[in-house]
Amino acid sequence: MNKITIESAPNGYRLINPGAVVIISVGDGSQDNLFSVTWNMPLRRDPGMLAILSGKRHYSYPFIERTGEFGVNIPGAEIVDAVLGCGRTTGSKVPDKFERFGLTRRKADTIKAPLVNEAVGNLECRVCQVVDMGASSLLIAQILAAHVAEDHFKDGGWCYDNGLELVHHLGGDKFAVSTREITPNKV
Amino acid sequence: MNKITIESAPNGYRLINPGAVVIISVGDGSQDNLFSVTWNMPLRRDPGMLAILSGKRHYSYPFIERTGEFGVNIPGAEIVDAVLGCGRTTGSKVPDKFERFGLTRRKADTIKAPLVNEAVGNLECRVCQVVDMGASSLLIAQILAAHVAEDHFKDGGWCYDNGLELVHHLGGDKFAVSTREITPNKV
Repeated sequence: MNKITIESAPNGYRLINPGAVVIISVGDGSQDNLFSVTWNMPLRRDPGMLAILSGKRHYSYPFIERTGEFGVNIPGAEIVDAVLGCGRTTGSKVPDKFERFGLTRRKADTIKAPLVNEAVGNLECRVCQVVDMGASSLLIAQILAAHVAEDHFKDGGWCYDNGLELVHHLGGDKFAVSTREITPNKV
Repeated sequence: MNKITIESAPNGYRLINPGAVVIISVGDGSQDNLFSVTWNMPLRRDPGMLAILSGKRHYSYPFIERTGEFGVNIPGAEIVDAVLGCGRTTGSKVPDKFERFGLTRRKADTIKAPLVNEAVGNLECRVCQVVDMGASSLLIAQILAAHVAEDHFKDGGWCYDNGLELVHHLGGDKFAVSTREITPNKV
């Protein structure tokens, strides 16, 4: 997919601002993995920061502990099958989720984890704080680099003019799509 | 709006699972306020937990410090003007944002803060952990009660059959709406 690289701040966080589900990519240069994360949010504009929740027993968690890094890949509706697949399988049984779900690797600029080429946006992130949540960790990370599909990003934000459909997770295997912009009246 | 009360767990968190912008309500029984928050996420299913980011200098912040409570109100597209208005004004200059933006109060079951009657969903929350983020705090809270528009919630999740449009914040005064469900193929 044809993408542009934008400054990681102040607008990098905007790739996850609409609250879409994301595919997290991890890797250490020899092995990698993908998993889907609904529970994510921006935390700061400049420097760009975000948080994701990850289970400590997940196959990918030791990758993040070792490297301190992960990629955030924002899918369009065209790869929703892969979103469900990456969330429903474990890397211990599916060693190459890219191949399994028809995705390809894009080399990141600043981290060892690969990015998902077919995603409409990618963020490269480094963990800077871990909040213990028992069985899970809230991983707070800085956004190091940001890439986005040229057709779908204008004036510092997502643009729905060219058929963009971001994927929002309802729960279980149910998803919705955001399909168009609305303009509030100032009251 | 005609709402049903659902168990706060395991499905209360699903009201914010799609990543919509929310209106936070605060109050101590004599005064109240509203502000819009894009940066929110679920954190746990059972007990239901979530996080929101709030600036420490916000007018509403002392309410939350004093009461330890807030309401999360999930708007449909029909009140997007109020979402923008509640985000763009301060309670120090607009003492009654409900009146200013055409909203009405609904009494909460478990907290002093009022809920927004016109929202399609409401969560009543109590803060259980505060993560210091400098100028902001990440407020981690338990979901005590959950209410949702009867027409828009089926089988434990949002249902788009009856015209539901949840509001997703792109940045600045730009918003998008999620408008329909999509069904992934299992691959």
